[in-house]
Amino acid sequence: MKAAVLFKINKPLCILDNIKLPRLLPGQVEVEIAYSGVCHSQLMEVRGRRGEDRFLPHMLGHEATGVVRAVGDNVSKVMPGDKVILGWIKGDGMDVPGAIYDWNGTAINSGGITTFSERTIVSENRLTKLPVGLPMDLGVLFGCAVPTGAGMVLNEIEIESHHSVVIIGVGGIGAISLMYAKCRNPQKLIAVDVRSEKLKVATALGASHVIDGSRNDVVEQILALTNGQGADFCIDAAGRTSTIELAFEATRRKGGQCVFASHPEAGQMISLDPFELVNGKNIKGSWGGDTKPDEDLLKFYKMSVQNTLPLESMITKRYDLESINEALDDLEAGVVMRPLIEINPALNGK
Amino acid sequence: MKAAVLFKINKPLCILDNIKLPRLLPGQVEVEIAYSGVCHSQLMEVRGRRGEDRFLPHMLGHEATGVVRAVGDNVSKVMPGDKVILGWIKGDGMDVPGAIYDWNGTAINSGGITTFSERTIVSENRLTKLPVGLPMDLGVLFGCAVPTGAGMVLNEIEIESHHSVVIIGVGGIGAISLMYAKCRNPQKLIAVDVRSEKLKVATALGASHVIDGSRNDVVEQILALTNGQGADFCIDAAGRTSTIELAFEATRRKGGQCVFASHPEAGQMISLDPFELVNGKNIKGSWGGDTKPDEDLLKFYKMSVQNTLPLESMITKRYDLESINEALDDLEAGVVMRPLIEINPALNGK
Repeated sequence: MKAAVLFKINKPLCILDNIKLPRLLPGQVEVEIAYSGVCHSQLMEVRGRRGEDRFLPHMLGHEATGVVRAVGDNVSKVMPGDKVILGWIKGDGMDVPGAIYDWNGTAINSGGITTFSERTIVSENRLTKLPVGLPMDLGVLFGCAVPTGAGMVLNEIEIESHHSVVIIGVGGIGAISLMYAKCRNPQKLIAVDVRSEKLKVATALGASHVIDGSRNDVVEQILALTNGQGADFCIDAAGRTSTIELAFEATRRKGGQCVFASHPEAGQMISLDPFELVNGKNIKGSWGGDTKPDEDLLKFYKMSVQNTLPLESMITKRYDLESINEALDDLEAGVVMRPLIEINPALNGK
Repeated sequence: MKAAVLFKINKPLCILDNIKLPRLLPGQVEVEIAYSGVCHSQLMEVRGRRGEDRFLPHMLGHEATGVVRAVGDNVSKVMPGDKVILGWIKGDGMDVPGAIYDWNGTAINSGGITTFSERTIVSENRLTKLPVGLPMDLGVLFGCAVPTGAGMVLNEIEIESHHSVVIIGVGGIGAISLMYAKCRNPQKLIAVDVRSEKLKVATALGASHVIDGSRNDVVEQILALTNGQGADFCIDAAGRTSTIELAFEATRRKGGQCVFASHPEAGQMISLDPFELVNGKNIKGSWGGDTKPDEDLLKFYKMSVQNTLPLESMITKRYDLESINEALDDLEAGVVMRPLIEINPALNGK
């Protein structure tokens, strides 16, 4: 089978054919991939910004949809023929290490989940059955972007109608946070981004205010919108030290909560004023929106239907597996919300 | 009446006589002070490490005991003759600004509470009745050191018998945190300090392990004591950026909690690895141990009696009001746990 493999950091992924899958171990599941997403995390890995990769050559990818083709011993959650969401956040089921693939005698490493390939072997706990009615292309978003984006605003904080919410960075995660936060109807829903086209997206998705993040007075503008107090909740979805610090600064004292999910390059530190923590500002890193896939994915899907959330607008560009490096470049350049890799779209119709 | 007043930062307090109290406003209470404590916060204020003082000349002090002598309109919590604890943490009752005293025509500012004087005017919500049986000298500790130290380990975290707890800095707050944490019988109770005599205090108070904080391998030692995971709870009571960062580093991922109360000089920042926050380490600044004086002080006192906590060992040196600058010097030099200023000890016997 075909796969896009990282052989060397800071180099394009290599598109290889004739990769052989090993025999399934207990707890492992073989899935034929329909679609894969590309997350900022893979961009960071490929560009070497997560530090050294000790697993080269390495399969990548952590959100996809597909059809189960075979299951290892002791797998009870899915069976062959099931349409599934593949995501990196652990759910129920066995947690087993990644498979080692063979490419003409070269061992290729993977992890509990990888998705940049026609077939993949994943750990049972990284699979959730695709909700009935959810197309497989949109379903990809439920592997990472939706659980993280929705989870940050539904699981990590409790938005009420008198609250002010700031979302920094209107990429895939940020836009989804914005959509789901809007379902809670906060009094103020403020989006910040350095690109004007992203601010248009934010307005279309229901932001009550948008702020040009390239200006020097972002915090002052947020203070002006929140009676000088700072926002009840500040979500950073841009993943830079400067944006996390900005989110913390714009959070109100005495109970305000700053949440961020994506994180900067390995080794980069954030700088916080401890007196602000003593004064009751809170900061929290989010592990996938604290989402429990087996309970939350269906809930998030139903909420998207009931509120007619335009999740499809996140998929602004589609690529085939051979063009995956272009998808990475586009994501880096900020010209695509959430790249979709069409690996075997025909599976969607089956 | 006599008071120790800050006229200029980085200078000794001036001992003045003939200071006149203004008329009580609604919500204010006049108290004759028996004893006052000296907290690290006053040291920071006097040494200019909390930034500019916009209220010079300024009365100081935020933990004391005394006897109510008069009450302003609308005060219902106490009446003349009541023995009270004075503390900076707000409780029930009116919250009113500080009085302005007169010293031969010079206005001297105060705040909602000040205690370095023979008499003081405080806001009703800074007073709690002295529990029956608690001597007035020990009672001073219940104005700040006990609510902060005990509150950090009883209110901010939930210690169970399988937990590991680290306490960094065995001064007044740290030692009290240690005593109260010991009441919960954690599996490991690890104290860190740079002074060997403080580590002896920690051992006497029930620490299961002590670590010399001047060594470079403090985190490694804590990891070695916690199966390489880091501690469930790390309490910083030293109030430096380096010790707060150390506490965060020594906290375990996936749910570990770092808590600190005292904070460094104004403007000093702490540096944290955001990936550790994403991995589920938590950090929290504590506002007076999240103590509600009207409920918690009596509870903390009863707990000290039931567990025969040696709170009296915190009072290692007594001073009169005229020697308060010596108390500040001793506190800075680390040669006293919690200085006690004896202003009118005779009130204790009445």
